Amino acid sequence: MDRPGPGSGSSFPALIRKKRDGETLRDEEIRHFVRAVTRGGLQEGQMGAMLMAIRLRGMDPDETLTLTREMVVSGRVLEWPDSWQRLLVDKHSTGGVGDKVSLPLAPALAACGCKVPMISGRGLGHTGGTLDKLESVPGFNISQSSEQMRSILECVGCCIVGQSEDLVPADKVLYGLRDVTATIDSLPLITASILSKKAAEKVSALVLDVKFGSAALYTSLESARTLAQSLVSVGSQLGICTVAMLSKMDGPLGQRVGHSLEVLEALQCLEGQGPADLHQLVTTLGGSLLWQCGEAGSVGQGAARIAATLADGSALGKFQAMLQAQGVEAGVARALCTGTEEQRYQVLGRARAQEELPAAQDGTVQRVEALPIALVLHELGAGRTQKGQPINHLVGAELLVTVGQRVAKGSPWIRIHYDTPELSNDQRQTLQGALVLAGSEPFLPSCKVAEVVLPQGSRTLEELSEEQGLGSSQELLCSA
Amino acid sequence: MDRPGPGSGSSFPALIRKKRDGETLRDEEIRHFVRAVTRGGLQEGQMGAMLMAIRLRGMDPDETLTLTREMVVSGRVLEWPDSWQRLLVDKHSTGGVGDKVSLPLAPALAACGCKVPMISGRGLGHTGGTLDKLESVPGFNISQSSEQMRSILECVGCCIVGQSEDLVPADKVLYGLRDVTATIDSLPLITASILSKKAAEKVSALVLDVKFGSAALYTSLESARTLAQSLVSVGSQLGICTVAMLSKMDGPLGQRVGHSLEVLEALQCLEGQGPADLHQLVTTLGGSLLWQCGEAGSVGQGAARIAATLADGSALGKFQAMLQAQGVEAGVARALCTGTEEQRYQVLGRARAQEELPAAQDGTVQRVEALPIALVLHELGAGRTQKGQPINHLVGAELLVTVGQRVAKGSPWIRIHYDTPELSNDQRQTLQGALVLAGSEPFLPSCKVAEVVLPQGSRTLEELSEEQGLGSSQELLCSA
Repeated sequence: MDRPGPGSGSSFPALIRKKRDGETLRDEEIRHFVRAVTRGGLQEGQMGAMLMAIRLRGMDPDETLTLTREMVVSGRVLEWPDSWQRLLVDKHSTGGVGDKVSLPLAPALAACGCKVPMISGRGLGHTGGTLDKLESVPGFNISQSSEQMRSILECVGCCIVGQSEDLVPADKVLYGLRDVTATIDSLPLITASILSKKAAEKVSALVLDVKFGSAALYTSLESARTLAQSLVSVGSQLGICTVAMLSKMDGPLGQRVGHSLEVLEALQCLEGQGPADLHQLVTTLGGSLLWQCGEAGSVGQGAARIAATLADGSALGKFQAMLQAQGVEAGVARALCTGTEEQRYQVLGRARAQEELPAAQDGTVQRVEALPIALVLHELGAGRTQKGQPINHLVGAELLVTVGQRVAKGSPWIRIHYDTPELSNDQRQTLQGALVLAGSEPFLPSCKVAEVVLPQGSRTLEELSEEQGLGSSQELLCSA
Repeated sequence: MDRPGPGSGSSFPALIRKKRDGETLRDEEIRHFVRAVTRGGLQEGQMGAMLMAIRLRGMDPDETLTLTREMVVSGRVLEWPDSWQRLLVDKHSTGGVGDKVSLPLAPALAACGCKVPMISGRGLGHTGGTLDKLESVPGFNISQSSEQMRSILECVGCCIVGQSEDLVPADKVLYGLRDVTATIDSLPLITASILSKKAAEKVSALVLDVKFGSAALYTSLESARTLAQSLVSVGSQLGICTVAMLSKMDGPLGQRVGHSLEVLEALQCLEGQGPADLHQLVTTLGGSLLWQCGEAGSVGQGAARIAATLADGSALGKFQAMLQAQGVEAGVARALCTGTEEQRYQVLGRARAQEELPAAQDGTVQRVEALPIALVLHELGAGRTQKGQPINHLVGAELLVTVGQRVAKGSPWIRIHYDTPELSNDQRQTLQGALVLAGSEPFLPSCKVAEVVLPQGSRTLEELSEEQGLGSSQELLCSA
């Protein structure tokens, strides 16, 4: 049935049918599809059907590579001076609750001499977006032309901007449609979407922070590893030195969730302070990039260099310069970067009300679940359900406990910042479910980065450190 | 991943995700989807993704029944006088090459006192449409309001019309999209599409001619049987007495393919003449309907009554009356129904050229493949590749041989009617591939109806005849 009529051999229904039946699409067929996505000639219904066919039937590595390449050439690509080539680096995270890594990492890399043309996204669903976090800083402008980006990279070394209209337009169309057609979590589509944008940035080295756990894209290590392997393999074939770190995302990263609260925590990190897990992830990811681009002999040496830029204020200086270069008034940028926490609150604002929730019983904090917190904050206005929705930057949560800590019944463990009249009992109950206490079981802190995926295979951080002649991962992680 | 945001529990992405993951949709979810298809609120891309998810994950019988019911109530349904109720019958075929059964069958049933509000379709791809065939008669108007249909059924007893805008609008939207998204051959979607239209016709009995074979929707008997069972089960649950006949479709039905040529052959059948396979299928399908609606004690008795209306001219009289009632001038209808073949050609027209192809060798005709013939006729202008395309009613083919017949090398076996400058050698070669000769192997003619699917299970025609106390199927089939 639905045998093609004469002359319809390379028609879109025939292409969709081929993928529907689990066959492999040829390069020119993928090109035909991506061009029609960008230039028209394909009904939206056909795109939806093709996305679902890809979601359910998959694509092999060659198809995924071709899809990525065709998406890159669907628009313009950025161009940089030849002398920068080796130094052009970027990081991408698959998204997590409280993940503000990009904010300290980009300036820290710039302080090490790298060029970081970071193109970020907005939040949708329960994860926050880097652009939304930066927009909680008054005056910050995410829209920068490629000429402006070049000038900022020249002066500062890093920028964090939105995707311009002419960069990977095929991804804009397909991503918007994936969002409403339940075809987000497709390995080839994720791979092509992430890497096409990074390839269009023309970076030489890329580190991917692939999250797994209860609040992540993929909950199991195995499925996250599969994605990481796909990303590393396709990234390498695109000529980008690509490494993926598999990091756990059950609880929020750091102690603060919410746009302006995360900027505050990123500033602590940029001062060499703040939560240890955030500091470790920033230095490890940054260390890997310095190693990848040849600026450090090992991940550990690179991590130490990143940590030094956080400790000596050079990363913070780059952050302040980046804010100014992207539209923030000098006085505002200075107050934010060199002021006290109170002065920072004056710049960013503070939600109308705060409420602390008490621990329901005595115990040791086993874990704090990120998802219930993210969902309640979303309800309180911190997140979007639809693209383009306004969000409240001031809504957020501060964790007052850390994993492994003893808490007494009645003592506060979380502080919620909100602008609505009050928290509902349902919301309080959802939040309380996030705190998981263990009676008196011994607590084993978990290493946030579980595995490193390289083009030549997977390693634990320990194995990688040993290969690089640096002893234990503890040393690596604590090299700050 | 793509975990729904708060409040999106019954959103369309969540619905699509559910079917994508192979879960069962609840009645209200299917209702929600079908209403949005008809009234808006769903992006076309979401429909495409849902159709592909249904195509790849399927629907269980309850979901299919609900889908069908919701499609019926997406528009208006026809209404008839109470006194007609038992007599309202219809036939539907899954489509085959040379299938002109509806043309003699509807008037034959009308001649038996039935009311036949037949809503037919146009051809797309390699199968012809009943409406297109009838439109080769000058003046024939397929657009009839429900009031006009009622008046024609009152006077004549049968009409063959197009689907009006307000009848099953959800099917219009989904069918149009299935066509371009490679989601035609989905059991639940076919079932819902066919039966929603028949349920909206408000018929009491329905016979389905489900084709299998090389030129059919489904090539294997097994897959056709699965469709037949789905149709019979859902049809019965909709309150329609439903029977399906599984009939073979390797070669064309009858000896003529092409719109006006098929009208000529239908007229032969209406005179009790013409090819035996067509006559048998018309009488068997019609006989079943007469049995189903209680006008005959068995399929065999019903078939004999249908055959009698063909032999005595009463069916032809009904056909002539239907043509007139649907806009054909009295003189034209009379010339067509009572004239010689030459007079009929004068009414319908004749293609500019005819070419006969010679048999390439001596042998016995094992079979004639329908598909190559249909594809060449399509190229010559007899078919559409896109909806709305004009077609040439005069293009067609006459088979000059029948299965089992001895042919000598060089003797003509097919005559092509065409309007293009000339046949290409490629076309001649494709056509020659349709003639399959066997050296001197014994030939076993095959019974066209292989199996009858009833609500209570499947039977061969022989078994059904025996159950009905009528001896062998040969008797049944030859009861004309």
